[in-house]
This record gives sequence, C-alpha cells and structure tokens, in this order.
Amino acid sequence: METLYGGIEGGGTKFVCLLGPGPDHIVDEERFPTTTPDETLGRVVAFFRRPRDGVRPAALGVSSFGPIDVNRASPTYGFITTTPKPHWAYTNVVGLLQRELGVPVGWDTDVNGAALGEWRWGAGRDADLLVYITVGTGIGGGAVIGGEPLHGLLHPEMGHLPMPVLDNDTFPGVCPYHGRCLEGLACGPALQARAGRPAQQLAPDDPIWDLEARYLAYGMQAITQVLSPQRIVVGGGVASYPGLLAAVRRHLVRINNGYIASPKLADEVDSYVVAPGLGERSGVLGALELARRELARSRGEPP
Amino acid sequence: METLYGGIEGGGTKFVCLLGPGPDHIVDEERFPTTTPDETLGRVVAFFRRPRDGVRPAALGVSSFGPIDVNRASPTYGFITTTPKPHWAYTNVVGLLQRELGVPVGWDTDVNGAALGEWRWGAGRDADLLVYITVGTGIGGGAVIGGEPLHGLLHPEMGHLPMPVLDNDTFPGVCPYHGRCLEGLACGPALQARAGRPAQQLAPDDPIWDLEARYLAYGMQAITQVLSPQRIVVGGGVASYPGLLAAVRRHLVRINNGYIASPKLADEVDSYVVAPGLGERSGVLGALELARRELARSRGEPP
Repeated sequence: METLYGGIEGGGTKFVCLLGPGPDHIVDEERFPTTTPDETLGRVVAFFRRPRDGVRPAALGVSSFGPIDVNRASPTYGFITTTPKPHWAYTNVVGLLQRELGVPVGWDTDVNGAALGEWRWGAGRDADLLVYITVGTGIGGGAVIGGEPLHGLLHPEMGHLPMPVLDNDTFPGVCPYHGRCLEGLACGPALQARAGRPAQQLAPDDPIWDLEARYLAYGMQAITQVLSPQRIVVGGGVASYPGLLAAVRRHLVRINNGYIASPKLADEVDSYVVAPGLGERSGVLGALELARRELARSRGEPP
Repeated sequence: METLYGGIEGGGTKFVCLLGPGPDHIVDEERFPTTTPDETLGRVVAFFRRPRDGVRPAALGVSSFGPIDVNRASPTYGFITTTPKPHWAYTNVVGLLQRELGVPVGWDTDVNGAALGEWRWGAGRDADLLVYITVGTGIGGGAVIGGEPLHGLLHPEMGHLPMPVLDNDTFPGVCPYHGRCLEGLACGPALQARAGRPAQQLAPDDPIWDLEARYLAYGMQAITQVLSPQRIVVGGGVASYPGLLAAVRRHLVRINNGYIASPKLADEVDSYVVAPGLGERSGVLGALELARRELARSRGEPP
C-alpha cells in the first residue's frame, strides 16, 4: 500500500487540508476559514483523526503564512512568530500537530511550500532555480534552489520590494511597514483602496490593471536581478485576472530592455512567467512533499 | 610541497593576477589596466609563464566582469558575452587560458568570485547564505549559498534593481538600460554626474552622501527581501568612503521598520552589512578557490 501523507496549507484567510500519496490520488480534502489558532488547528487535527478505515497519514507537512521560524536549532522552530494577525503571534503549530497526531511534521512558508509543490509536480519541474509568487490579499514569494526551499537569515519576503514611482502615482500604499512597497502598491486590498471598489468590479480596460501589471513587472525584474531564476510561477487571486499575466510579461520584457540577454526575457517570456501548474493546490501539495521529506528525515534516510 | 593555484580577477578597469596556495602565502601578484583582450590576456599568460624556479599553478580561476556564460553545457561557456565594453564582447577567456597554459580553468562572475573568497577566507566564513556587493564604477552583487556560487537562468545582476524616488530626485540616472536603477543612481559615475565633480572631492557632509547611503540601503533591503542572506559584504571604491557604510546601516534599519524581525536588521546590523575581510583581494582570492575546485573537478574528486 502506498504511504499516505497529510498536507496543510495555512493561509491568513483559509486553511486547506489534504490526505493522499500525491497529486494523482487525493483521498480527502477540506477547506475552512482561518479563525483563532485553537479552533483552526482543532479542525486540522479533527480532519486527520477522522475515521477512514484505519487510513492515517505517516507524516504531515505545513505550508504556513508567516513570518515563521524555520531554523531547526531555534527554541521557536515551528512557530508562527511576529504576525500582526490577531491571536496567531507565537503559535507553536508544529509542536501542537506533533503532540496531537504523533507523526513527523515538515514545515515551511506558504510560498516556499508552493514553490516546492510546483517544482515537484507542477510548472517548475525542469527548473533548478524556481520562484513562486502569490498576488492576492498580500504579495509573497518563495524559491526552490536545486530542490531545496530557500532559507537564509529567515526566509524570503519578496512582497516588500521597493518600487519606483509610475505615472506620478500618489497612492500612499497600504503596507503598514513600508507604505509603497510592491505589496503596498499592488496587493488586492491596494487595488481596492485605489479604485474605491473590489478589483473584480473593475472593467478589463480600466487603466488600474495596466498600472498593476507594471508594478508586478518591476517586482519580477528585481527578483530576476537578485536571484536569476529559471522560471517564475505566479499564483494568487489577483494574478488569475484574465490578461494580467500577459501584460506583466510585456512590461517585464520592456523594463529589462535587453539587459539580461536571455530569450526568457524576450521571445520566450511566456515560459519564464507562468501560471501555476497545480492551480490552487501548489501550497498544499508542497506541504505533502514537506511531509514526505520529514518522514525520510525522521528515519535517517536521504530526502 | 603545497599545491599552487593562479587567481585572476578580471575587472572592467584593471586585472589582478595572483599565484599562491592561499591568502596566507602569496608567491607573486600583479595588477595592470584592462585594455584590449589580446593585450590584457597576453599579460595574464605572461605572468603565469614567468620563470619562478619551476613553480607553476596547477589550475587557474577567473572572477570576471560580465555578463559571462557560466553554463557548462553552452557552446559559449567561458566567454564574456554581451558586454558593451569595446573589443570584449564574446571573448573566450577560459578557452584562451586553457590553450596557452594547459591547466584546468575555473570561471565565475567577479562578484560571485568575491562572495566565494569572502565565504572561504574573509568576512563571510560563518554565513551559509552570503551576498557580496561592489559599489564602484558599476554596482554588482553575487551570492554563495551553502558554499556554492549562485547561478540560475544566468547569474545575479544585483546592481540593476528598481529604485524609489527619494527627495523628489530628478537626476535621470546613468544606466543605459534602465536609467534610474540602483547602478544608474548610485554608482561612482552617477555620483560624479550628480555632483559635477569626482566623488572624492565632495565634502564628508555633502548631502549627496546621505542620498547615496539611502539608495544603497534600498538596494540592500531589496536583496534582503528576495534572498534573506545572513550577511552582506560591501566592497568597491565608493563603498570604502569613510562613514558611508555606517549611514547605509542606519537607513537600512529605518527602511525595514521592524518588518524582518531579526536583530541583524536592528541592534546587530553592524554584523549584517560589513566591509570585506580580504580588503581589495576578495575577487582574486575567490578566483584562487575557483581554481582549487576546478582542479578537484578535473580529477573527479569532491570539491
């Protein structure tokens, strides 16, 4: 019988739980809103404890909203740390799941998890250096290099890149830390604040969409300059707006202006900036891969 | 007898050649201006052929200005590629040195080489994820992750990050590709164009220095958001101006505004943004390490 894993995508607005051996066979899946840690993680535990003829996951993985502590040597490893989200600061997610479910628990950021999912099974299978960006309620980015999620001092926080001023834009931005960073100027709530109504209600030819595409293209140009990824997968609710990614690609090629002399920044940009191959499951399937690796690690096997 | 290696730092304005087993024993060293490829690489070959009682390097390494081709599977591997520098576009540096000197030749960008040198022997010895930035005639950045120089689609080009407008700055920037990118606004020639005279002639309290520090701090904030390095080593002629790095650190802490919740972006910023541990030899000593690794590779040994 195939080994079953549990994947958990912990987002700021919703949680997704998935049970299965991999993306081709999903035994069970559930989505519910993110409320308090007690209630939300209680539902996660209940999902994996549900009687299914003795079918239980051998390990769990979590792709979590952050910031989170990914340093195994730290006393707060496995915690969500300084999040402004009410009730969630310094929540010990990994500790609670290990205690309640008694299996190894893998752990990374939502966007590193999504990058890992796309690298393993989705639109990044041939990319040795893959970036995943989400554009929705917030903007975040993670990376996988040579099959390993990127960690350093902490983990990437690609949403908070500094931005140039476009079109004498005077919108002050919505980021409480930086004001006019990429997230502050281009996340869903920024679009809504700028337009005075939800982004979904804007006409496709509203000039706000072109401005949005240009800010996102500057963000991708910055990521390209620093990391030189082989592919950028762009997920999230805002990014799925029809035509937006195509506009981002056009502006990215224009902004690069021939400097990075690669066809990926020219004729082949369609295969450089791409939609997720796993749809909305990049993060939760990445969590499944985190689970598989954590089980191998707990057994002293190579990942 | 210790194995001797040859390190070559190929810069846009000068070349440095160094012969030795490592930084503690430099057998010979020479610096000369970068002119045409024939003349400059001819001097490199002559330096390593010079009679020294039979002492010859077992391998060479080159830290080169770019852009360069670092893809071993590419037909132009070992070439400087699309550089605007007269005569140097599509120069086969590795091929020429291998042919003339008959030893393995390691190869990477000047800034990846410098990052490798600082990681091996300098200010980055304890950093698993290290960034090296140079601020001089141009601005460039490289990285070492887990001991390996960062390559992806091509290699990092951290100098060309998009920048916010500061103080209603109307200076158009000097970058021919992007105008007002980090390099366009803050490299040595940008300082000189802005001030109307060489940067060295500016008074220490000239407000241009504070503007320079703020642009550099935004560049480091962007690099921090994307890569999350454990340390950023800053070299180059402009960066060595007294007091400049201290001002960059202050502005970086202010710009981060508590978002990245690490002491490295607060009280410990002095150990996050640092001067090179190898002085002006980061790049050429990194080239020595590239030589050592290439020799091991040519013998099928682990690096």
